[in-house]
Amino acid sequence: MLRSCAMRLRTLGATPARRPEATRRLFSSEEVVCKDYALPNPSWTKDLRLLFDQFMKKCEDGSWKRLPSYRQNPPQALQEFQTHFVDSKFKKEEQMSKAQQFTRSLEEGLGFEYAMFYNKAEKRIVCLFQGGLHLQGMPGFVHGGAIATIIDITAGMCAFSEGIVMTANLNIDYKKPIPLLSVVVVNSQLQKIEGRKLFVSCTIQSTDEKTLHTQATALFIKLDPDKPLT
Amino acid sequence: MLRSCAMRLRTLGATPARRPEATRRLFSSEEVVCKDYALPNPSWTKDLRLLFDQFMKKCEDGSWKRLPSYRQNPPQALQEFQTHFVDSKFKKEEQMSKAQQFTRSLEEGLGFEYAMFYNKAEKRIVCLFQGGLHLQGMPGFVHGGAIATIIDITAGMCAFSEGIVMTANLNIDYKKPIPLLSVVVVNSQLQKIEGRKLFVSCTIQSTDEKTLHTQATALFIKLDPDKPLT
Repeated sequence: MLRSCAMRLRTLGATPARRPEATRRLFSSEEVVCKDYALPNPSWTKDLRLLFDQFMKKCEDGSWKRLPSYRQNPPQALQEFQTHFVDSKFKKEEQMSKAQQFTRSLEEGLGFEYAMFYNKAEKRIVCLFQGGLHLQGMPGFVHGGAIATIIDITAGMCAFSEGIVMTANLNIDYKKPIPLLSVVVVNSQLQKIEGRKLFVSCTIQSTDEKTLHTQATALFIKLDPDKPLT
Repeated sequence: MLRSCAMRLRTLGATPARRPEATRRLFSSEEVVCKDYALPNPSWTKDLRLLFDQFMKKCEDGSWKRLPSYRQNPPQALQEFQTHFVDSKFKKEEQMSKAQQFTRSLEEGLGFEYAMFYNKAEKRIVCLFQGGLHLQGMPGFVHGGAIATIIDITAGMCAFSEGIVMTANLNIDYKKPIPLLSVVVVNSQLQKIEGRKLFVSCTIQSTDEKTLHTQATALFIKLDPDKPLT
């Protein structure tokens, strides 16, 4: 719903693209917070690895950047966000420290396996996505809600390049179901900015681009730090 | 995405409403398949239990029915579905037997806690929903994709009363974010049927009905058993 947090904001603008590498060694709790999930793991199929490698190649000249992805918001960024946007009645801090990013809350390979790449000049995000066996809707296929989720985060990250935003509308046409464990390409493009409104388009296609699985538009609103969210 | 399966179809039409009760004793694998998740568990807040009890009272005269909810499709229903709708290339049966319903794949209390109630005469489904800590989008709030998911299943179940359907469009306006661990009421209504198209409206409100969190429309298409899905 909302593209958070300060850490990701800095990432989108500044971190250089790197070849995938082992997560650096950290102490226990820090390790959970900082593990980057947008890197290959044993559950990734050959198709997903192949596409990932192709996009990593595109990163070499700096035109594309791989975006890291975390299960939890780092404590500092969380505090920063809460100070700016969240009303005090929702600061149940102890409980909230156990919260996890929805798209990273399922075990390796069973949920959302994905990596995003950002092209600043083209205002585009490409997300390579493999839906695990626990994302099932109708037997054998990815749930419509899981598809909406991957659209929300990909289109949202596109809008997020312009500031901290919240989803205001998602309009999704489901054209062809996505088989579980298949790899698809989510392509989102920032189309227009009108004041605090950001309009983003999004498609999901098969890797050979022959099948259009899903087509969507999304509207995001830039947040006003002077107004609480609720 | 798709309202499956034969077991649920039978349920929507025929099972009488009952007071919540312990799952009947079953043998190991059968137990996993048949556990009904739409019953109170220790993670449910007082608000959710209270609302659940109110709706169970409404079931007593038969006007409303509680709908059970499973993590996996029973093998027989799965086979039935595959025989009718799924192309042979997607019958990776061994793998697919490990698939789980997206909305029931997170551990108790951490994901989607919900119970649905169906009013046949009014063509309405009400879903009582509590979003767990692993559904986080922006810090402290339910992810937009998780909200889309609960809308998809509630509106979809409304359409499902007319036959086996697949989501064709979801159009969702996010008005106010939903705090994690709060309880909200999802209300969906079958509005119109045009041939194989079913139009459903859906809202998410706070329990006191003072806050409209989300408003959506959904279009579902009745499946044709003579055509493969992909």
